[in-house]
Amino acid sequence: MALEPELVARFAGLVGPGNAVTDPDRLAPHLVEWRGLYRGRTSLMLQPETAAEVSAIMALAGRTRTAIVPQGGNTGLVGGQIPDGSGGQIILSLSRMDAIRNVDAAGGIITVEAGATLQAVQDTADAADRLFPLSLASQASAQIGGVLSTNAGGTTALAFGVARDLCLGLEVVLASGEILHGLRSLKKDNRGYDLRNLFIGAEGTLGIITAASLKLFPKPRGTATAFAGLASPARALELLTLAQSRLGASLTSFELSAALPFQFALRHMPALRDPFARSYPWYVLLEASSPVGAAQAQSALAAVLEDALAAELIGDAVPAASDAQARAFWAIREGMSEAQKHEGGSIKHDISLPLAAIPQFMDEAALAVQSVVPGARIACFGHLGDGNLHYNVSQPVGADKASFLARWADMNDAVHAVVSRHGGSFSAEHGIGVLKRDILARSLDPVALATMRSLKNLLDPLGILNPGKVL
Amino acid sequence: MALEPELVARFAGLVGPGNAVTDPDRLAPHLVEWRGLYRGRTSLMLQPETAAEVSAIMALAGRTRTAIVPQGGNTGLVGGQIPDGSGGQIILSLSRMDAIRNVDAAGGIITVEAGATLQAVQDTADAADRLFPLSLASQASAQIGGVLSTNAGGTTALAFGVARDLCLGLEVVLASGEILHGLRSLKKDNRGYDLRNLFIGAEGTLGIITAASLKLFPKPRGTATAFAGLASPARALELLTLAQSRLGASLTSFELSAALPFQFALRHMPALRDPFARSYPWYVLLEASSPVGAAQAQSALAAVLEDALAAELIGDAVPAASDAQARAFWAIREGMSEAQKHEGGSIKHDISLPLAAIPQFMDEAALAVQSVVPGARIACFGHLGDGNLHYNVSQPVGADKASFLARWADMNDAVHAVVSRHGGSFSAEHGIGVLKRDILARSLDPVALATMRSLKNLLDPLGILNPGKVL
Repeated sequence: MALEPELVARFAGLVGPGNAVTDPDRLAPHLVEWRGLYRGRTSLMLQPETAAEVSAIMALAGRTRTAIVPQGGNTGLVGGQIPDGSGGQIILSLSRMDAIRNVDAAGGIITVEAGATLQAVQDTADAADRLFPLSLASQASAQIGGVLSTNAGGTTALAFGVARDLCLGLEVVLASGEILHGLRSLKKDNRGYDLRNLFIGAEGTLGIITAASLKLFPKPRGTATAFAGLASPARALELLTLAQSRLGASLTSFELSAALPFQFALRHMPALRDPFARSYPWYVLLEASSPVGAAQAQSALAAVLEDALAAELIGDAVPAASDAQARAFWAIREGMSEAQKHEGGSIKHDISLPLAAIPQFMDEAALAVQSVVPGARIACFGHLGDGNLHYNVSQPVGADKASFLARWADMNDAVHAVVSRHGGSFSAEHGIGVLKRDILARSLDPVALATMRSLKNLLDPLGILNPGKVL
Repeated sequence: MALEPELVARFAGLVGPGNAVTDPDRLAPHLVEWRGLYRGRTSLMLQPETAAEVSAIMALAGRTRTAIVPQGGNTGLVGGQIPDGSGGQIILSLSRMDAIRNVDAAGGIITVEAGATLQAVQDTADAADRLFPLSLASQASAQIGGVLSTNAGGTTALAFGVARDLCLGLEVVLASGEILHGLRSLKKDNRGYDLRNLFIGAEGTLGIITAASLKLFPKPRGTATAFAGLASPARALELLTLAQSRLGASLTSFELSAALPFQFALRHMPALRDPFARSYPWYVLLEASSPVGAAQAQSALAAVLEDALAAELIGDAVPAASDAQARAFWAIREGMSEAQKHEGGSIKHDISLPLAAIPQFMDEAALAVQSVVPGARIACFGHLGDGNLHYNVSQPVGADKASFLARWADMNDAVHAVVSRHGGSFSAEHGIGVLKRDILARSLDPVALATMRSLKNLLDPLGILNPGKVL
């Protein structure tokens, strides 16, 4: 199943000198997912510089029935970007296609190639006095092609939506090698069927995104950040309703955390300080933005929190007194995932739920977790405003990591059963990849699944686009 | 080609008594588009009450190769909802499927059947202290199924997006009769490929939307409305940039009009008054919303307009002094289309452009119009914030209406050529229907067109779903 040297040479001839990587040391970091959970093999990674080169690669892949695995910044969490173990799949890295093709500040549109990092897009927007709102902990490495292919969410989806909502058009190389020229720079465009959204979230299984037109927004002139301590998810939902009714679209983040991941972050990141004098069972990190300035955002947020205190929705609230303190608050939130590593094995769930179902879900899921591994510690945090929870389960204190992680599938099944009972999703923002392929096949509406399979067969009849992922 | 009586009886047996309309008088209003531009024939309209009935209808349609034309409120502008002249197509009216299935105010989601009117959805949201923002002049009749099937836009797309952006999930009956259960009530959900957006904007050619989950928003506590008079579209774009940077997402409408449609509205709607003491070449209607109250919106909008006056972006601005005056301002804007009827024949263009291209487009398109019909009067208005213009052309004063309208295709060609030169779209928010099917086939990226055709063939292999529309 490994790639024949002659085939490697033919593919290598399609890209510029130095852009066909065969050196095992250079290949190695692209063969393993960053947490080490997914590993693959290959003897070739191609780094094309143009959509025309990607087109030539797909045409040859079709003629030779060679599987192509597109890879962006390799920050994905479900294994979608890693080749299988056969050695017969080629990695297609988009990293050299990183140009910012155009910035139209007045029109609110940026056109970028797939290999541009999310950070580069944010920075380019910022330099043009505009905001590209999508924000992920991995944004320094995550590339736009991967962000779109996984339909990433992040902390600003509450006000600005997920990747899908931020994309106006795509350039895509199809399995046939044909190039779909869909880089539309229009806010409204009803010319026929929507093709863009087929490729967004398809994890490279229906086509290779090579460039995208994305929405830009006026840059807020100031933000206000505050942490609140409170008793329960039900109270957090009431606070969300209050904050949204009072702040509207200027409520730009609303992040929930249980006490445990909050404490993990403080314990393992010694530079961070607890903003509160006492501890609370739950915490919410709120951010409000203003087109006028920080003072307006601060007074609006403070008024909400005062009323929330008076209504006993929260026990305490600490507004960030400076930009530095706001960054420190965000560091607690963004450090939760990393800090969890120091607490032993962690079994992850990336779920979403109807908002109203969340309190009940929390109660039932806690029982489900204990029934699988008594003493397991639930480290739940996430984007409450989107109904999106990272429902992570840390091993019991002192337990054996390997035997805890051996219960991964059982734990997933138990938690996802509760999710399903409440009309939720087992894949909110991280995608399907290989991790959730089986559960998708098992649990999705059969008509939807059959339609997805027929779309895959239509757009990739030879099965050369990232095979073994999603479906 | 007319429907056999035996076939009519078989289809009629699939719906409840009285729900199979064969009376020519009752059929008549469903056979003609409201402006009289599109006319068709049929001897049967079915009015199913459940998705299961729609499923049975499609299953029988498949077995008998009978074409089904879904129809909502019959307010469409491109002929998509009207059967052809053969008499062999059945109208499938969704009007009896008008239930509001669920309102989740706290979660910000409303689930409605396809036949619910846009007005009913707005009113239901309002009664739950929420906003469903999509707003069209035809909303009292327009049904959600049609709104989604045409991916309608309207006056609030600037802040809230088009129909596509407001939809979380769909229930769809496929050509096979299978029911796709996709009524997801989740803000984030990455379970496989996005099927929802295939059906949105497909004008009933890929499946029949029977229900939808839609986003609700916190209701603004106050709005401010103002008219500004100004010199040119270039100035209007500068005003837009200023207003967006200062108001952010609270700028909820930004409607441009040339002097002519503004004057038409005042001339033919005698209850309306000109807000200005003198006339201007162009006008902008602005609306700002506030989650706090009208006073906040008014002061924020007034500050923008003061600065715009000082910077000489505008010649004058008139804030609405009351809700009644705000409604009167909107009546001028919403009356433009109707008022144009009194000025003789009108050739319409529903176009969108990159914002920066609009001033140049205006100059070039004016020349193009004059080259086709000297003396034709350009009545251009639209949603400038979305780059979406209704570039309508009224006949020369005193000209013969029929001979002017005979130039429809030539006029379209001339204007669309300028649109195309500037990277714009000939179909911004009204859809393709039969009106723009030829131009779509002629001018779309061939790879995109071929992909759309293969999707149509995949999802409707027998060609029974609204044949002759879109593709």
